[in-house]
Amino acid sequence: MGFSISEAEHNRRVERIKKVLAKRKLDALYLTNGTSMFYLTGYSFISTERPAALVLPIDGKITFMGPLLEKDHIPLKTRIIEDVKTYFDYPGEKHPIETFADFLKEMGLAKKRIGIDNRAGAVGIWGYKGPPITKKLREARFMDMKDLVPSMRLTKSDEEIALIRESAKWANLGHALLQEYTAEGFWDVEVALAASTEASVIMKKALGPDYEPLRRSSPVSVGFRGQIGEMSAIPHSIATRHMIRKGDVVVTGAGADVGGYSCELERTMILGKPTSKQKRCFNVMAKAQEAAFQTFKAGVRCSEVDKATMDVFKKAGLMHLVEHHTGHGLGLEGHEPPWLDIGNKEPLRSRMVVSCEPGIYESGFAGFRHSDTVLIADDRAELITYYPRDLDALTI
Amino acid sequence: MGFSISEAEHNRRVERIKKVLAKRKLDALYLTNGTSMFYLTGYSFISTERPAALVLPIDGKITFMGPLLEKDHIPLKTRIIEDVKTYFDYPGEKHPIETFADFLKEMGLAKKRIGIDNRAGAVGIWGYKGPPITKKLREARFMDMKDLVPSMRLTKSDEEIALIRESAKWANLGHALLQEYTAEGFWDVEVALAASTEASVIMKKALGPDYEPLRRSSPVSVGFRGQIGEMSAIPHSIATRHMIRKGDVVVTGAGADVGGYSCELERTMILGKPTSKQKRCFNVMAKAQEAAFQTFKAGVRCSEVDKATMDVFKKAGLMHLVEHHTGHGLGLEGHEPPWLDIGNKEPLRSRMVVSCEPGIYESGFAGFRHSDTVLIADDRAELITYYPRDLDALTI
Repeated sequence: MGFSISEAEHNRRVERIKKVLAKRKLDALYLTNGTSMFYLTGYSFISTERPAALVLPIDGKITFMGPLLEKDHIPLKTRIIEDVKTYFDYPGEKHPIETFADFLKEMGLAKKRIGIDNRAGAVGIWGYKGPPITKKLREARFMDMKDLVPSMRLTKSDEEIALIRESAKWANLGHALLQEYTAEGFWDVEVALAASTEASVIMKKALGPDYEPLRRSSPVSVGFRGQIGEMSAIPHSIATRHMIRKGDVVVTGAGADVGGYSCELERTMILGKPTSKQKRCFNVMAKAQEAAFQTFKAGVRCSEVDKATMDVFKKAGLMHLVEHHTGHGLGLEGHEPPWLDIGNKEPLRSRMVVSCEPGIYESGFAGFRHSDTVLIADDRAELITYYPRDLDALTI
Repeated sequence: MGFSISEAEHNRRVERIKKVLAKRKLDALYLTNGTSMFYLTGYSFISTERPAALVLPIDGKITFMGPLLEKDHIPLKTRIIEDVKTYFDYPGEKHPIETFADFLKEMGLAKKRIGIDNRAGAVGIWGYKGPPITKKLREARFMDMKDLVPSMRLTKSDEEIALIRESAKWANLGHALLQEYTAEGFWDVEVALAASTEASVIMKKALGPDYEPLRRSSPVSVGFRGQIGEMSAIPHSIATRHMIRKGDVVVTGAGADVGGYSCELERTMILGKPTSKQKRCFNVMAKAQEAAFQTFKAGVRCSEVDKATMDVFKKAGLMHLVEHHTGHGLGLEGHEPPWLDIGNKEPLRSRMVVSCEPGIYESGFAGFRHSDTVLIADDRAELITYYPRDLDALTI
């Protein structure tokens, strides 16, 4: 296998888009979302204030419109993009959105029906200002197609699953090194960076000349994100100034970029002999995760999975320590649909890939959460991540 | 000094907001942008699909509305936020935006005039779907205030400048280590991760128990981002599969998180004795940067700085190798206004902090760009980054 999605698969994705456009009587699709562009073309770039868009006409060349500094980058990374139209820079003497309107006219789209994922015509971050593209091409008709590419991403192809499986190996290596290096007196950031660096270098050596990360700066990213000691009770902590201490509960996270895709692997570890309270919380969390594992299969509603973990927490009298739902889809972004949430009645579908990460958090004490990557199949679920989950293995 | 913005300064920022609200006869400000929230409160969190907003009423408590998992995090990081109102999770049985509308009613804002930075009421990333808050609070009047906080961020206070100065020291250390470790046969990612890790650990040891990164996972981030050899001609390369070779031109980047702020430091380095063509491109680039340095002072238009570097490139007959403008504001985000762009006629103001990074890029050959962080003063500019800029010092 290669370490990225094949050109044949990108072509299939483009064909699916064209079929939808034909069905909706649309002449083109205009995308501003960088993840959607990557999904269709394999081309990733750094999103900035500079407007960029992919235009996919039903007839005609697939065209990237963006800043000049992307021009030479594109042919090195993809053959799906057939034409590149650029402006010099933002804001420029003429606003790039005016230039985009001109490009669309050149492409014969001035009076056509165009599906669009964002009526502004640009992602609009980092202080960007500008008129919406819809106001600069008054005779075209723009239709909201924000959900089209995200809906295609909901279930994964064989190639995508293979990349996520490959990612799981290197996240596992990173996590093994992280556990090895975790010790009293170290700063969590130090342990995280050391394990990420070592795992990344080994991953490159193992995968060889063809491997490069496509969407992250570090091939393997593993760490605690500040979730050590009392701060482990903060599910989305960012960092901490404190050092790791004996007796700490720590919550980890690991991923690895393979063709832009990543698994999600998280573990709760304890430094030293667990107290009975730590043990109890750990075991209830593990039981809730196990309950979700037993629930997963195609056709089951997402809300039922969330209910299964909540039932375990309720029965244990710990529901007041639950601070988030059971999981989310994953693949190209940190989180993506479907949401394993009590409010989401959609059924799981075969080939969905989701995280399973029920957790409990007691303020001033500790947090307990494992996360595994789960592939949904017709009559069961398969765990793609396989790092040990039991307390013995996770006691340092 | 501390390693973050003081509470007193956050209070002054809030007071400035309240004055603007009073002047515009607004009863509250509703912010969805995480950087704006951090700027006003010192609280940073991981932006996800889960809606989050800061509500700053002219009378009443400054309130964070967001997911339950942020509740215990906030009081650990800021005292500026006086109330935290949460929903369990997204999407939930009741949509969080409906809950936000209820919260605003509780706060007495149902029929008031509310400034807002995003009419959706949520940043809306990672597959988020929901109705705009403006449709859920029909009797309130929402006014676009997207530019309010960004405009406050345009000039920097003494505290902000001190943090950026501190950042420059650690970026410099990271860069020194990067240069030391750069050698033939290494993968650029390996050198980058090793230097980032070592510099980050030293930075923490030097700054001591009170230091923690607020917005980045690595205190010091230094690397090449794929800009080695021929790939140095791609200004926004992301990574490369290739190893560093003798004769390569490499383009670097370094920053360090001090209180959420960072400088920007980039250098062009050459492995081995530079060829005459490499030397010429390097020297023209350095001359363009020097021309900008001589142009900077309060009152000069941003476009004039860009024109100064273009004049050097034109005179050298290399304007066809220029792929972007001269620079951008910086502080909290990768890029921020003001844009040092031929199309931006705004004058530079004292206390603006900008990057100065004219570059040239020849496809299939190499790219040449230094970036320095520049503080604008009334009658001159001060270079905050100080890593050597001359070819001798940057030849490996």
